[in-house]
Amino acid sequence: MKVNGTAYRSVWRATDKSSVEAIDQTCLPHEFRVVRLKSIEEVARAIQSMVVRGAPLIGATAAYGMALAMHADPSDTQLQQAHDVLLAARPTAVNLRWALDRMRALLAPLPHSARSDTAWFEAETICEEDIAINRAIGKHGSLLIRELWEKKSSTVNILTHCNAGWLATVDYGTALAPIYLAFDGGVPIHVWVDETRPRNQGAALTAWELGQHGVEHHVVVDSAGGHLMQRGLVDLVLVGTDRTTARGDVCNKVGTYLKALAANDNGIPFYVALPGPTLDAKSADGLRDIPIEIRDGGEVAKLRGRTDAGEIITVAVVPQTSPCFNPAFDVTPARLVTGFITERGICAAGVDGLRGLYPELWR
Amino acid sequence: MKVNGTAYRSVWRATDKSSVEAIDQTCLPHEFRVVRLKSIEEVARAIQSMVVRGAPLIGATAAYGMALAMHADPSDTQLQQAHDVLLAARPTAVNLRWALDRMRALLAPLPHSARSDTAWFEAETICEEDIAINRAIGKHGSLLIRELWEKKSSTVNILTHCNAGWLATVDYGTALAPIYLAFDGGVPIHVWVDETRPRNQGAALTAWELGQHGVEHHVVVDSAGGHLMQRGLVDLVLVGTDRTTARGDVCNKVGTYLKALAANDNGIPFYVALPGPTLDAKSADGLRDIPIEIRDGGEVAKLRGRTDAGEIITVAVVPQTSPCFNPAFDVTPARLVTGFITERGICAAGVDGLRGLYPELWR
Repeated sequence: MKVNGTAYRSVWRATDKSSVEAIDQTCLPHEFRVVRLKSIEEVARAIQSMVVRGAPLIGATAAYGMALAMHADPSDTQLQQAHDVLLAARPTAVNLRWALDRMRALLAPLPHSARSDTAWFEAETICEEDIAINRAIGKHGSLLIRELWEKKSSTVNILTHCNAGWLATVDYGTALAPIYLAFDGGVPIHVWVDETRPRNQGAALTAWELGQHGVEHHVVVDSAGGHLMQRGLVDLVLVGTDRTTARGDVCNKVGTYLKALAANDNGIPFYVALPGPTLDAKSADGLRDIPIEIRDGGEVAKLRGRTDAGEIITVAVVPQTSPCFNPAFDVTPARLVTGFITERGICAAGVDGLRGLYPELWR
Repeated sequence: MKVNGTAYRSVWRATDKSSVEAIDQTCLPHEFRVVRLKSIEEVARAIQSMVVRGAPLIGATAAYGMALAMHADPSDTQLQQAHDVLLAARPTAVNLRWALDRMRALLAPLPHSARSDTAWFEAETICEEDIAINRAIGKHGSLLIRELWEKKSSTVNILTHCNAGWLATVDYGTALAPIYLAFDGGVPIHVWVDETRPRNQGAALTAWELGQHGVEHHVVVDSAGGHLMQRGLVDLVLVGTDRTTARGDVCNKVGTYLKALAANDNGIPFYVALPGPTLDAKSADGLRDIPIEIRDGGEVAKLRGRTDAGEIITVAVVPQTSPCFNPAFDVTPARLVTGFITERGICAAGVDGLRGLYPELWR
């Protein structure tokens, strides 16, 4: 997607061919900054500190991390260590394991001399596949939005939580891809952007993305969605996912479950954009099977913002004597999900729908 | 309640007998500052800008505003104008109209010479009544918490949204009064404090209050409550209300509805602390009858915090080009409310329960 007119991806191999570059998402929306990652340690730190975030982007960046590792040292020890260090960076997103397992399985049987080139090639392949998946999700989802428009004959109001836009992927996004494609196709759209505390990915990233693309939107606090739905101001809720189980339980940014409850209570369709690599067919019960990352309480207590003078600073918003608890995700049970928008089409939430689209994962 | 060992109320008549003092709640938790209010305009501005907030405290402060007005000019014109100016300060809290109507009805028939003294006396009476109401709510509610403790035999985990503590009232609080009384009575309690965006009354006021009183607590983002309930980490949800209708629909800080949905989905009791003056028996359907205040979007886009150097500054957390939408309240339908804790006892949510406790309002 374009940033001030220039096409960017969220992560890419640097022109020096021996490092990786990424948009530093901790600086947005105030500063657009590119960081260079030169080692697996730097990649792991970028994932852990959310310089890069979003399930698909974490997977792609980790794949590049494996390439960096093989570039530096193509040994078996390094291969295993890179896999383990990167896997430990964040526990919830299934794409991380998916990408690392895929890289290791491909590289392990190869002679050491072939590992670096193959790793770079495969990381690029994962990126290209991610883009293709997101474009397909965008195409299927945009038809859904167009149908809502045709039924309603006025602006379609979509609520989204966190950032499942192009910054959460290599390009296009998952939940935002249908919005971009429908918008580009002439459908009038307005987006309610949940600010998404504590890291404010909605206010910082989704609002910035939509603004860059010219899509009309308003930022709201995470608590406002229920009110908006009660008042008929939401036609569709559209979110991403960090891991979805075989039966359709959706693990996503904390607070997604509350929006799903409100959508259900108000008869509003609640769709999840689900790329294949985010489907974890080995798990079933989301509450039982998915580890929920508990992040540092400091993310709740402090936040970064821009002063009137343009300086970016960190301020505390909680008394110093009050501890904070910071679960990063929650699980939305399949019963609250209307359907999944995947690269292979749209299906109802539940094992039948998912198995119908991804039969190979059930074999 | 005590602040660093000294007893305070949230608002009081100053020792000069011709002005009113209040704790400036926009400075907490970073600074404890007392402001002096000398005119109805200053009182109206303090209510509008949330220097004082919380339905009961808004009512008490407005009563003092009427006294200031009568002190300056006891004419009929001034009486009516003070009523109207103060009423316009915030549209949702019913206590504001309740206190102003009560003051006007009392003062209008009096000779001008008697109005000032009577107004000061009546404002003090409203404050004393508020305290008595809150102590009674505390007593009834603390028994409920004690029962949970006896059933569970371990720390009772209570989730609360916004600030319905002593800072939202003249003293004791509504939703926090049961917590203070149960805690003082030896019940082990831990409170999950919703930060309550955009004004952060939870992180700023409730956490500060609980800390001052020594009650164990953690601050969480507003989105975390659903996750906590899914994981069995919440035994009771306890909130205040800005207006409750005859059939038990609860208007409270935006986001309350989402917590009620989650409590309902997880079989967790959801109680509302309801002082009599907050019951609006003339309205029935909360969604239809209660005007929801839409506040300035700047409250979402910018917030105040403390730098590491101790400076209090305002920072922007939303791109300058993204507009914000800021509804201040939502409506929780009675069907999601387990019961009301009032100064007259606890009742089930619904017209029968409320009419049973407040029959005079239905006559």
